[in-house]
Amino acid sequence: MKTIHLGFLGFGTVGSGAAQILEQNAPDIETRTESKIRIKAALVRNLGKPRPFAENIAFTDKAETILEDPEIDIVVEVMGGIEPARSYILEALRRGKNVVTANKDLLALHGEELFNTAKQTGKDLYFEASVAGGIPIIAVLKQSLAANKISALLGIINGTTNYILTAMAEQGRNYADVLAEAQKLGYAESDPSADVDGLDAARKLAILASLAFNSRVTLPDVFVEGIAKITSEDLQYASELGCTVKLLGIAKHLEGGGVEVRVHPAFLPNSHPLASVSGVFNAIYVVGDAVGETMFYGKGAGSLPTGSAVVSDIIQVTRNIHTGSTSSINCTCYHDLPLTESRDFTTAYYVRLLVKDEPRVLATLALLFAEANISFASIIQKPRGHEQAEIVLVTHPCREAQLQDALDSVRAYSKTLAVYNVIRFESGI
Amino acid sequence: MKTIHLGFLGFGTVGSGAAQILEQNAPDIETRTESKIRIKAALVRNLGKPRPFAENIAFTDKAETILEDPEIDIVVEVMGGIEPARSYILEALRRGKNVVTANKDLLALHGEELFNTAKQTGKDLYFEASVAGGIPIIAVLKQSLAANKISALLGIINGTTNYILTAMAEQGRNYADVLAEAQKLGYAESDPSADVDGLDAARKLAILASLAFNSRVTLPDVFVEGIAKITSEDLQYASELGCTVKLLGIAKHLEGGGVEVRVHPAFLPNSHPLASVSGVFNAIYVVGDAVGETMFYGKGAGSLPTGSAVVSDIIQVTRNIHTGSTSSINCTCYHDLPLTESRDFTTAYYVRLLVKDEPRVLATLALLFAEANISFASIIQKPRGHEQAEIVLVTHPCREAQLQDALDSVRAYSKTLAVYNVIRFESGI
Repeated sequence: MKTIHLGFLGFGTVGSGAAQILEQNAPDIETRTESKIRIKAALVRNLGKPRPFAENIAFTDKAETILEDPEIDIVVEVMGGIEPARSYILEALRRGKNVVTANKDLLALHGEELFNTAKQTGKDLYFEASVAGGIPIIAVLKQSLAANKISALLGIINGTTNYILTAMAEQGRNYADVLAEAQKLGYAESDPSADVDGLDAARKLAILASLAFNSRVTLPDVFVEGIAKITSEDLQYASELGCTVKLLGIAKHLEGGGVEVRVHPAFLPNSHPLASVSGVFNAIYVVGDAVGETMFYGKGAGSLPTGSAVVSDIIQVTRNIHTGSTSSINCTCYHDLPLTESRDFTTAYYVRLLVKDEPRVLATLALLFAEANISFASIIQKPRGHEQAEIVLVTHPCREAQLQDALDSVRAYSKTLAVYNVIRFESGI
Repeated sequence: MKTIHLGFLGFGTVGSGAAQILEQNAPDIETRTESKIRIKAALVRNLGKPRPFAENIAFTDKAETILEDPEIDIVVEVMGGIEPARSYILEALRRGKNVVTANKDLLALHGEELFNTAKQTGKDLYFEASVAGGIPIIAVLKQSLAANKISALLGIINGTTNYILTAMAEQGRNYADVLAEAQKLGYAESDPSADVDGLDAARKLAILASLAFNSRVTLPDVFVEGIAKITSEDLQYASELGCTVKLLGIAKHLEGGGVEVRVHPAFLPNSHPLASVSGVFNAIYVVGDAVGETMFYGKGAGSLPTGSAVVSDIIQVTRNIHTGSTSSINCTCYHDLPLTESRDFTTAYYVRLLVKDEPRVLATLALLFAEANISFASIIQKPRGHEQAEIVLVTHPCREAQLQDALDSVRAYSKTLAVYNVIRFESGI
């Protein structure tokens, strides 16, 4: 039986999860691949640190030990970050090694260069672990839904923000409280900005949109808004309106038009399959012209779920090595579709305002929106004391540019005391 | 560019759906496979019938025309049934053709013979469309979750029964009414028995369990109970108990033990991801040791969703033909695990009874269950007039053999007027 040698770049949470799975499920994996799979070496920063599931692995702090070892068949990049990960992967491919990576930051910026290099060298570059942990969305988009034109992909692809929004909604607590708790429980980083500002979701969405529409989308193409401004009041109104607030990654390919890629909090109807995805779970909802609506659900992070994706990729690459079929699907971006600008995004909006509780204020607000050609789907007004009233306006769908015009007028109106929040609606298709 | 020639065996709902997708998405499919994919011939019973998406297809009523044509690379079996489908597929493989099939009836009985033949001949036998329409559960189990030991698989894998149970629960209507409506709408066959008796789900479960546990499960191995006895009263009690009633396909591989495979209606907690899968949608929930809980959701039937699975398989086989890597994953049943007998299934039970409304009746019932070592998790009692009372007992988990002992005593008890229904609980893991 042939032995496949792996070289790990990095051996942190994801790397040690993959090592644990390779060890614990070795007999099954051996049968499934007709190979022994062995981690020969791993690049780490601190050679002295004790590590679990590391028996028989040669740890090194020099990348060349791995990249220049002719016996290593697959380089597993789980170190993260842009450099030196990018250079190492390019070097590994050029030296004839296949690569499995979990690096969303890198792929969201330099995917094209990496996939082209894999193609030129005839090697595999697999990346299931880069998006949504153990959920097999990359393979689904590249293979299982290959018969389809995808029109929309909506994802809950950041567990930290979904945990925070779920806890705020279920327990009526405020954002700062729940964030602090999430940090204590290890669900949020001490610097939570990449999660709560939507950047992590945006990276994953760039990768997913590129696959779904066969057109390269990179991080700077994604419109991003985070969840820090969401309050428990907004979640209460969402509930009154039959909705749940989720941080969604939304990618749409409009008929005959361009690609729209955005990450922002959204009011989602409770009847939508994504609405019941709670806590740290992730899910990706995909609409194809043949298959219709589909959804893929699971844990989006963690040592073992992400390790599951890494090891499944290692198994598939091993099979490809045996059959001589590496590089059979690499870059799939054969279109070059235009991007829709954010001012042209067309959605319904929730607008929460504080105004003076006087006659004709609501009429004037309606007029200011009407001047921007926006009409309302529903209105909620509640007294707030001190002759003030809180008003929630839900608009019919309009372009963002229209809404901004209306909001400019509303802010300039003398009876407006505050524009608390503006949140998009997402119907789901 | 190479042309891949297809021969269809059958051209009904699924066949014409696949043909429609191949025509409508031809440019993308050509790019994705670097091939022209052409349906050269199709076997049909009635040559005179006009058919859509059939331009340039040579229709024939002789299977040899397809099986003996050396130009045909892939035989697409969408005729259904056991024979002659089985003989045709075996013949096609022996003549060096790859096969894509949607035939669950056949695979659930003769999977082993077919996969062994594919292996011997070095050809592909793909079957994504045989289970759950467009949901890519076969590829997920064979490839994307290959790093995992699967401990449980629960599925809503029959759209007809899910439509009926959803409508009964949402509208408080009775079984016969909703079934008649489903027949009128085309969601149920004029002879609905294969669906409502659970046989269709059992075939799919046999295929899924074989893949999940790497141990051959065939249709006769599956314990089956249908939904015909479920009443709107049962659904009302389910709601009171925080549950939804679903026809579930359940496959479990208990630690150190055998495989348990059963299809029956079950009380499922509303918090379970499968509980919100409504109407004709299907979903499969899979628990792996590394990935944890996952779920795969979509349309389980229909011309285009099932066609999506057939065409995605054709695309994958085409890629395999190009890289010379057909037959890289065929039979995956390398274990031979024992099956758990139904008398050893251990679940909680819902038991609905009509009894005489007299003192000490409940005490006696409790005693009869206690003699079988069964205790209760909850009890609901409601007066029914005429000195009768309806009692719902929810047991703690017990073996089926214990429950049958208790039910024998309950039926023999003079104050028992009727045992209306007995339904299992499923906690979900």
